Amino acid sequence: MTNCNKNTAILRIHCPDQQGIIARVTDFIWSKNGNIVALDQHANNVEKRFFMRVEWDMNGFTMDEETLPGAFQQEIGTPFQMEWKLNFSRKAPRMAVFVSRHAHCLYDLLARYRSNELAVEIPLIISNHNDMAPVAEQFGIDFHHIPVQGLNKKEQEEKQLALIRKYDIDFIVLARYMQILSADFIDHFPNKIINIHHSSLPAFAGAKPYHAAHARGVKIIGATSHYVTNDLDEGPIIEQDIIRVSHHDDVNSLVQKGKDIEKVVLARAVKAHIDRKTLVYKNRTVIFA
Amino acid sequence: MTNCNKNTAILRIHCPDQQGIIARVTDFIWSKNGNIVALDQHANNVEKRFFMRVEWDMNGFTMDEETLPGAFQQEIGTPFQMEWKLNFSRKAPRMAVFVSRHAHCLYDLLARYRSNELAVEIPLIISNHNDMAPVAEQFGIDFHHIPVQGLNKKEQEEKQLALIRKYDIDFIVLARYMQILSADFIDHFPNKIINIHHSSLPAFAGAKPYHAAHARGVKIIGATSHYVTNDLDEGPIIEQDIIRVSHHDDVNSLVQKGKDIEKVVLARAVKAHIDRKTLVYKNRTVIFA
Amino acid sequence: MTNCNKNTAILRIHCPDQQGIIARVTDFIWSKNGNIVALDQHANNVEKRFFMRVEWDMNGFTMDEETLPGAFQQEIGTPFQMEWKLNFSRKAPRMAVFVSRHAHCLYDLLARYRSNELAVEIPLIISNHNDMAPVAEQFGIDFHHIPVQGLNKKEQEEKQLALIRKYDIDFIVLARYMQILSADFIDHFPNKIINIHHSSLPAFAGAKPYHAAHARGVKIIGATSHYVTNDLDEGPIIEQDIIRVSHHDDVNSLVQKGKDIEKVVLARAVKAHIDRKTLVYKNRTVIFA
Amino acid sequence: MTNCNKNTAILRIHCPDQQGIIARVTDFIWSKNGNIVALDQHANNVEKRFFMRVEWDMNGFTMDEETLPGAFQQEIGTPFQMEWKLNFSRKAPRMAVFVSRHAHCLYDLLARYRSNELAVEIPLIISNHNDMAPVAEQFGIDFHHIPVQGLNKKEQEEKQLALIRKYDIDFIVLARYMQILSADFIDHFPNKIINIHHSSLPAFAGAKPYHAAHARGVKIIGATSHYVTNDLDEGPIIEQDIIRVSHHDDVNSLVQKGKDIEKVVLARAVKAHIDRKTLVYKNRTVIFA
Repeated sequence: MTNCNKNTAILRIHCPDQQGIIARVTDFIWSKNGNIVALDQHANNVEKRFFMRVEWDMNGFTMDEETLPGAFQQEIGTPFQMEWKLNFSRKAPRMAVFVSRHAHCLYDLLARYRSNELAVEIPLIISNHNDMAPVAEQFGIDFHHIPVQGLNKKEQEEKQLALIRKYDIDFIVLARYMQILSADFIDHFPNKIINIHHSSLPAFAGAKPYHAAHARGVKIIGATSHYVTNDLDEGPIIEQDIIRVSHHDDVNSLVQKGKDIEKVVLARAVKAHIDRKTLVYKNRTVIFA
Repeated sequence: MTNCNKNTAILRIHCPDQQGIIARVTDFIWSKNGNIVALDQHANNVEKRFFMRVEWDMNGFTMDEETLPGAFQQEIGTPFQMEWKLNFSRKAPRMAVFVSRHAHCLYDLLARYRSNELAVEIPLIISNHNDMAPVAEQFGIDFHHIPVQGLNKKEQEEKQLALIRKYDIDFIVLARYMQILSADFIDHFPNKIINIHHSSLPAFAGAKPYHAAHARGVKIIGATSHYVTNDLDEGPIIEQDIIRVSHHDDVNSLVQKGKDIEKVVLARAVKAHIDRKTLVYKNRTVIFA
Repeated sequence: MTNCNKNTAILRIHCPDQQGIIARVTDFIWSKNGNIVALDQHANNVEKRFFMRVEWDMNGFTMDEETLPGAFQQEIGTPFQMEWKLNFSRKAPRMAVFVSRHAHCLYDLLARYRSNELAVEIPLIISNHNDMAPVAEQFGIDFHHIPVQGLNKKEQEEKQLALIRKYDIDFIVLARYMQILSADFIDHFPNKIINIHHSSLPAFAGAKPYHAAHARGVKIIGATSHYVTNDLDEGPIIEQDIIRVSHHDDVNSLVQKGKDIEKVVLARAVKAHIDRKTLVYKNRTVIFA
Repeated sequence: MTNCNKNTAILRIHCPDQQGIIARVTDFIWSKNGNIVALDQHANNVEKRFFMRVEWDMNGFTMDEETLPGAFQQEIGTPFQMEWKLNFSRKAPRMAVFVSRHAHCLYDLLARYRSNELAVEIPLIISNHNDMAPVAEQFGIDFHHIPVQGLNKKEQEEKQLALIRKYDIDFIVLARYMQILSADFIDHFPNKIINIHHSSLPAFAGAKPYHAAHARGVKIIGATSHYVTNDLDEGPIIEQDIIRVSHHDDVNSLVQKGKDIEKVVLARAVKAHIDRKTLVYKNRTVIFA
């Protein structure tokens, strides 16, 4: 269960694999009296790349949050040619939801939010339709209707960006948002837009996957949650899962079973992102334990 | 997807297995111009028992709804020593939710209800705590707080029964209701109370299953939805499923993963019940396709 | 468990959906004193097509096996414009295995065969390599090495066909056979060649799916068993399943996990075929219960 | 895929959680020019216990295999109050299979062994029946028939122990061995006897689990592989999994589906043991990545 009150630092790093990384990083933390509460690492032996997530208690840590990044960069980051990211659990990330007309993912995320399953703030919902306005109201979250049609995408994305700045948003979840975002928009949020694709990618990429799945007579259908990049449906996969189907399922019942697996997969991906357990390298993810 | 507007009759039967049942039943329907839209049957060859669910379109059916039961009993039910139940899809069943303090199953059911995934009416929520009152209000459903403590169970169950009569309730879903119902109460609702047990029954029956599961070091945890009988946790199983866990999971994270599987399993069981796809015989269920 | 000694008739039919099919078919069987041991049917309400599998005991059946097909065609098949197939369980189908160099599917099928899990005869193994000869010998099954290289495919397929005739083979299982069969060859065996594709089709159709899956960073890998048609990897799907993977899995470990799911999926598909539970219509399968 | 030719050291440790463990252990390895190829650790924050598995290349390692244990104990083991185990991948463990009359697990293990999926030697099969003798012969493995009846268990276990010594066996796999081992026997092999229980423990512990599962009308059946301790079916769980079933499954078909999941679960557990990825602490396992 998410304890939003915990006070930890979360460091995610990757760098060329070499001797002594874990030792140096953990020494750095211990030397400042940091008590490590989680550590997971992975080495890719083919690409000789090292990945690590380490989380430690900031209570009693002897270096303050402002000094920490600079000190880490100098002592560890630079010598190991490291790319790294540092977050503090006390500052919950702020998430915007983009949605079109399907309620299932939105409801699931908001119910988890209200039940304190997710250590996140959700101040903003944006939609190109009005259908979900009552759901937003039900949960007391600001809802902005920004229709996207014909040639107004650029202009409407400006409005979206303004709202995202105004609400101080850290990352965006596309909870069945049926508009393709422009490359410009996506470039603002590298590995910070999470999509749910209603199919096991790369199968049935594109529109109407359940019709395609039914026509093909598949025995399983799946869902894929991934970070959005400029290659449509080709971004780094965070989570996937499937559900069994049979000849009894018509397109409608595939859609219904699809919804059930979509919302589960999206929720897991969003939770991994919120808990800072994801790391992207070369269009693939490492999902830390 | 549930089409609440469809106008079908749903007949569920069981009887000693013998020649000609399907033929006689389908002849009965066709002779009155009924177009069968679904038929599933099962024969238990050990117990020599026959089970069938048949659903047909009432548009154009030449016998009216009032005459139908008596005619069926006379022509088919009696000669085949049949037990049977007849429902009409136009009359959505009315469901009450009993809940204590956990929101996840309640939210999931209400979100599905509002998204028209369930062909049901939910006019009533009863709880022994007040925690879920805001959720009920959020979804605009009447909420009644009936605390159960010490020796007042009999008296409080009277209040529950009065509400159930008042709201004309057909069946009850225990969405993590942490009180044991009395035998008297249960006797009012044979195969009409659906529970979610937070474990794969019969493993870890009883309280604190996630603590027990953690102590045992299991690699999977599950959930079981079943009809409530007077044998605690021993009623007919409707649906079960599991999720994988590992040594990384502490009790809290087992609880969280458990919630995710509980709400999925309960939703599937409730949907099967609403769609009149369940049939109980000798403490086991047949779940029709 | 498979009872090879049972003496049943298995009838699979499909026809335009219309009133009275089940009644007429079951009447036909009962009128000849046939005791039905299994019946499963499915109606596709969009395409208005009806599918049924019915199995009955031939002990005490008053019509002999030779008269039966003609009588059925006249009384039922013709009036209902039915396509149908009749098999007798006493005659186990005869299966040939085509294999290249991977042992896992071959071993699994032969172990099941020797353990009487499959009601089949396996008199013949054909391979384009010699690697599996010891496995064939181990299980006492004739092994024929028919290398396929360059331009000799037509000639080698002639040899394969001659063996298939000689051994009186009913259907062929490609247990990781890495050669593409010619259209001519496939045309001899409509819905009688079962392939295992080492991926969840339609994802990663084609060669090296595990390399593709690893490059794409998938979180699940799957396997698909299908009947072989002239559209490569596009034939009717019989069974699919998946296994979870993670960033810990390199290509080799994906291959190993893939083998585990391949052999399970292929075995289920082969068993469904042997038990005459499959039916193909418009490039999709109905898999009867 | 298992590379039996690799030359690595595998160290598994557990000790009270404290600062600097990873750093000291990895420093120890690097100081002797050891290249780490895998490292996985886990800290139990409730019990304050630390677990780690580290594997490094012995090619170029500057300390010889004989000196290593003493040096490690002195420098690291003693100061950290560590329990640890050191293995070398070049020495494949030697495994004995105990089996009764069911072939499915035995076949699966032997097929994997012959296909080089398992980095193990299997020189010995012991059975209380003769049924599996032909399978042993088929795979060219010594088979000893040691019937256990009435009061001769002690005497027969002496014979088993003599064979285990003679064949220099490291660990035992009970591949559906239907005899209960004596406490004396088990005491010889702490965490070195792997059993497959044909049910999801703790559900249906005991005999005839499939009959019990059928009577209970379960919708899933499972299998559990665990180390054998003196508490029957209560030893540390290594792996579990399930398969879905329905009212269509009679006891025989539950048994068949059970076999399929049993052999998969046992194979995964055996592979984890062979790869030295298991660690037992307080009757639970840590399974390293």
